[in-house]
Amino acid sequence: MVFVLKPDATKEQIGNFILELEAEGFSTILSTGTEHTVVCLIGNTAKVDVDHIVQTNDIVEYGKRVTEPYKAVNRIVHPDNTVVSVGNVNIGEGYFTVIAGPCSVESREQILKIAESVQESGADILRGGVFKPRTSPYSFQGLQAEGLEMLLAAKQATGLPIITEIMNQTQIPLLEEVDIFQIGARNMQNFDLLKEVGKCKKPVLLKRGLANTIEELLMSAEYIMSEGNDQVILCERGIRTFEVMTRNTLDLSAIPLLKKKSHLPVIVDPSHAAGIRALVAPLSKAAMAVGADGLMIETHNNPSKALCDGAQSLDLKQFQELMVDLKRRAAFEGKKLSQHDLH
Amino acid sequence: MVFVLKPDATKEQIGNFILELEAEGFSTILSTGTEHTVVCLIGNTAKVDVDHIVQTNDIVEYGKRVTEPYKAVNRIVHPDNTVVSVGNVNIGEGYFTVIAGPCSVESREQILKIAESVQESGADILRGGVFKPRTSPYSFQGLQAEGLEMLLAAKQATGLPIITEIMNQTQIPLLEEVDIFQIGARNMQNFDLLKEVGKCKKPVLLKRGLANTIEELLMSAEYIMSEGNDQVILCERGIRTFEVMTRNTLDLSAIPLLKKKSHLPVIVDPSHAAGIRALVAPLSKAAMAVGADGLMIETHNNPSKALCDGAQSLDLKQFQELMVDLKRRAAFEGKKLSQHDLH
Amino acid sequence: MVFVLKPDATKEQIGNFILELEAEGFSTILSTGTEHTVVCLIGNTAKVDVDHIVQTNDIVEYGKRVTEPYKAVNRIVHPDNTVVSVGNVNIGEGYFTVIAGPCSVESREQILKIAESVQESGADILRGGVFKPRTSPYSFQGLQAEGLEMLLAAKQATGLPIITEIMNQTQIPLLEEVDIFQIGARNMQNFDLLKEVGKCKKPVLLKRGLANTIEELLMSAEYIMSEGNDQVILCERGIRTFEVMTRNTLDLSAIPLLKKKSHLPVIVDPSHAAGIRALVAPLSKAAMAVGADGLMIETHNNPSKALCDGAQSLDLKQFQELMVDLKRRAAFEGKKLSQHDLH
Amino acid sequence: MVFVLKPDATKEQIGNFILELEAEGFSTILSTGTEHTVVCLIGNTAKVDVDHIVQTNDIVEYGKRVTEPYKAVNRIVHPDNTVVSVGNVNIGEGYFTVIAGPCSVESREQILKIAESVQESGADILRGGVFKPRTSPYSFQGLQAEGLEMLLAAKQATGLPIITEIMNQTQIPLLEEVDIFQIGARNMQNFDLLKEVGKCKKPVLLKRGLANTIEELLMSAEYIMSEGNDQVILCERGIRTFEVMTRNTLDLSAIPLLKKKSHLPVIVDPSHAAGIRALVAPLSKAAMAVGADGLMIETHNNPSKALCDGAQSLDLKQFQELMVDLKRRAAFEGKKLSQHDLH
Repeated sequence: MVFVLKPDATKEQIGNFILELEAEGFSTILSTGTEHTVVCLIGNTAKVDVDHIVQTNDIVEYGKRVTEPYKAVNRIVHPDNTVVSVGNVNIGEGYFTVIAGPCSVESREQILKIAESVQESGADILRGGVFKPRTSPYSFQGLQAEGLEMLLAAKQATGLPIITEIMNQTQIPLLEEVDIFQIGARNMQNFDLLKEVGKCKKPVLLKRGLANTIEELLMSAEYIMSEGNDQVILCERGIRTFEVMTRNTLDLSAIPLLKKKSHLPVIVDPSHAAGIRALVAPLSKAAMAVGADGLMIETHNNPSKALCDGAQSLDLKQFQELMVDLKRRAAFEGKKLSQHDLH
Repeated sequence: MVFVLKPDATKEQIGNFILELEAEGFSTILSTGTEHTVVCLIGNTAKVDVDHIVQTNDIVEYGKRVTEPYKAVNRIVHPDNTVVSVGNVNIGEGYFTVIAGPCSVESREQILKIAESVQESGADILRGGVFKPRTSPYSFQGLQAEGLEMLLAAKQATGLPIITEIMNQTQIPLLEEVDIFQIGARNMQNFDLLKEVGKCKKPVLLKRGLANTIEELLMSAEYIMSEGNDQVILCERGIRTFEVMTRNTLDLSAIPLLKKKSHLPVIVDPSHAAGIRALVAPLSKAAMAVGADGLMIETHNNPSKALCDGAQSLDLKQFQELMVDLKRRAAFEGKKLSQHDLH
Repeated sequence: MVFVLKPDATKEQIGNFILELEAEGFSTILSTGTEHTVVCLIGNTAKVDVDHIVQTNDIVEYGKRVTEPYKAVNRIVHPDNTVVSVGNVNIGEGYFTVIAGPCSVESREQILKIAESVQESGADILRGGVFKPRTSPYSFQGLQAEGLEMLLAAKQATGLPIITEIMNQTQIPLLEEVDIFQIGARNMQNFDLLKEVGKCKKPVLLKRGLANTIEELLMSAEYIMSEGNDQVILCERGIRTFEVMTRNTLDLSAIPLLKKKSHLPVIVDPSHAAGIRALVAPLSKAAMAVGADGLMIETHNNPSKALCDGAQSLDLKQFQELMVDLKRRAAFEGKKLSQHDLH
Repeated sequence: MVFVLKPDATKEQIGNFILELEAEGFSTILSTGTEHTVVCLIGNTAKVDVDHIVQTNDIVEYGKRVTEPYKAVNRIVHPDNTVVSVGNVNIGEGYFTVIAGPCSVESREQILKIAESVQESGADILRGGVFKPRTSPYSFQGLQAEGLEMLLAAKQATGLPIITEIMNQTQIPLLEEVDIFQIGARNMQNFDLLKEVGKCKKPVLLKRGLANTIEELLMSAEYIMSEGNDQVILCERGIRTFEVMTRNTLDLSAIPLLKKKSHLPVIVDPSHAAGIRALVAPLSKAAMAVGADGLMIETHNNPSKALCDGAQSLDLKQFQELMVDLKRRAAFEGKKLSQHDLH
């Protein structure tokens, strides 16, 4: 249940209103927009009389029963687009943010070389896996703590914010200097992990699971937000279908639906979705046209020798060419690409 | 198995070469490109010695074993893009063709009004269902022969080529004045129907089945081409997945893959894929950006009263607005939209 | 909408009641059970007042609005199990019917040898494909008319009823002596074909499509029944999922659901579902335990040389061993296996 | 790569052989069967000459290159069925083990009442959720530590071994007195959790993920075994498909495949798969017939008031009736049901 408050409601009035609701056993989420403050009521509201509350509280403009199971991520609660900020980089409204880097950090030289190159091409954020979720226990599991140091060195050298995957809650302290936590597709419903990153103040990029619906993705984002962290980025990366020519089926319909249902920024990962290098460019263009807020693209200095996912990685030149095209397209769409060179 | 012939091979030489191959029990498909003539060998070629044939036939530049199970639709056999022509309208290379119209022809006034409006907005081809495949025998099955007359009247009034669905081979004579046969998703593997339309000289738009792979779509196109009809348009219209928020999941990755594997034009049907009006515009933009050759869009003068699929139909004004945007985008992509006003 | 009539309603009364309903623009389906006669009203019944009809018609015991979109196939309309009869063989209530034979009829000797062997092992019905729906136009398409003659010869020699696939409506006269029409998975929503076989008096075995829901299967059966043919057998044969180790995923949950929703007999095809010979026996046992009315099993005299689907065919000895086990199990379940030797 | 050793190989010889292999950079898994000892080589064995090793090591009977990516779970490495033991209960070879209990522990009285009832009906192991993975953060999350105490009290009162879900690795110490860790479907590829339970000596029941292949399930079991824990039970619980009438599609084909590929016991959870009470009994019978080693069934004293998953829970009487039927069936199959009353 959602209450939109009048523009002139004072902080004290709002506080009293919330206390009253919580006294009846509900939790509340407060959302302060540019024009309105919205109070969202959590709990079993079946017996609550919306009209009664509106009529007996002067500061309430109107109340509405929300049928969707997600509250904090719901655009009804928060009509403005959320903009997630990391350092000087903004993700959301007006920006088209490109995250680039290798599947795995492999060496100090490798990650530094890639970081400098993708920065020059216009990427805003550097990705690099150090803890790798692999189907087989015998596959390369990432360079782990050692890889993290290399990634942090690349951050320091270039000034690029970094994103890396967190695989369990005990890694939170270790990843303190990382700018964005990535929750992988296989952990989208690892609810304990969602709760713990929800208690952090760091942005979280949440990937859609291979067999998860759009509503389940929003519910997992709700887990993070309900713990207090409102810096969530949604990521579509392909779902599992019967089609065998691609690794997964990229569900681009999800982008306008997520943007409609929620205020959170949405980015697309064409590399993992397709698993084929030649599809990265066309799917990137389609993702921009369909309304995504950005891309996450696997980029490697030598894809044929990559320790993982080489077949879907662009080399540095291919990435640069794609970025040239995307800049032209971003201008056409009225969006800004590449924020880091503005500072 | 494919043989690329030398540019200076004479018709007589080519004819002799083919006769020789067919004498050994193979069928052949001859493809005359702008630069090269290609001869494609059909049948069990396991025991054929490619090198021997190349060495012993002067007119053969090189021979190649094709592993894909499709031959005639294969880009290796026919490197140039196929352009399908109906009247003055071209589908393929350089054009972005929009097919528009209602799910069902409902009355003479309705189809004429829609035809005139979509023509004015820039659509090149008019769609209108007269035989409707419906899940329930108790649902509206289309106006049938009566509807066909109305559709033909709209064709005559506007000059727009028309496309309608053929549901079984006995309808071929009845649909003689229709410009393009549409094979629906549920009939994609109705092999007997494919063979019969393959014997016609009329273009065929072949929709991907709800659970069919990209390779199976190409194999069904091969059925049509192997009977002698090379005017085939492929159509991606969404596949069935576990996602429930959309009617189907539009697989835009299929577009660049189909364009790479085959020379046939590929169009996208965002209306049936999504089943939601609000998704038609963003998915149309994405389809253009990903490389499709056109769109098929359900358009109705009064969607809320449509006899079928109203929830996914654009009204005439929404269609016009989309076309304005698509023209701007086609210019950006270097493609031509709306061919009919050139004549 | 369904009306259950009183046991003492006379034929004349029933006839008058039906005429009255049809006079208001509805179609009706009459179902005469062992205890009650049920009249099912087809059409848009939204404005019909059920209670009014019950109160004003003495012969009506009660009326009920049916929400499911299928009427004639609905168990509410026809509470008793339908038993489909072909010659001396019954499919349904109390019987567990095994259909066996090769994917394709390959020669007179082959089909006769297989027919005699499966008959001796206890199969009740002989299957044999003569028109084969194949993904590729270059694959073996069946022996067609010639194969049909061979199949009929095997029928005559053994007395076994025969089933074969019909691929389009023009084949109906040709298949006159066939005992059961098989509608393949790819034609489950070939609605024109369903209507035409619905006009015949011959039993129809309707296979579930690869991407079709249980409700859609029932709706396709409704197409057949709504044309007057109530001899329909449903067949679960696996659906398409992301799993790659089996050809399809056999959905055994569908059996008890179909038995609950409908009165039609349900059989299982484990051969096509799994595509692996070693799975045929365990899935056959599971199908019996879950409540199926029978099985359709691919059986071949020499699977390694079969012209199609050899990898999933049992050889004649494996089939015999399976039947020995199934007889023991049928006795345990209180069902009768192998009816042909009773006559 | 797998080496089967001669029966008379001494421990010292085996130790030396292993040291030799490990000196060349490989890991090894030693499996001591009733007749043979098998040494499994882990790592990139592409350059290893199998024949050379067989010829130069007297104790090696034969060597074989294993193409499957799983080693320790592979039946080739361990031809005998693994029997997992908890207290007096055996899961695997010759037994059909039923795990029963509520979705969630709700109170001391509830869990005790259910425990006593299912024990009397013949269940061998008590299930009860205390940490509940729920799609929504606002749904009941389980009684957590308090619920665990109640579950342990029920264990003490009845002597039944207990199983409960572990949601993250920090819960391992808390769950010390639990007899079997359950890894839920959503955590099947939570690789860090798999590794940590792999370091424990407690049996692990690993549920197949909603979109995971049979091979991926085996790879996740491999994660557990590769850390030293060989007490793994596999559990099929339905996969996500387009079918909407059931919660998930139970893939019973997976059972014979898992039994063929692996030596681990396999049980089936019909409650979560179907999500419909009426399907639990038929699917349980099918699971036994197809070769499963047991069942996990949700049972509740008052399903209509259950805090979660009431619609799929059997009440205590329904469970008892099912067990009576299953005992009769187990006898028919030559298996033992209900072990706890034998001791």
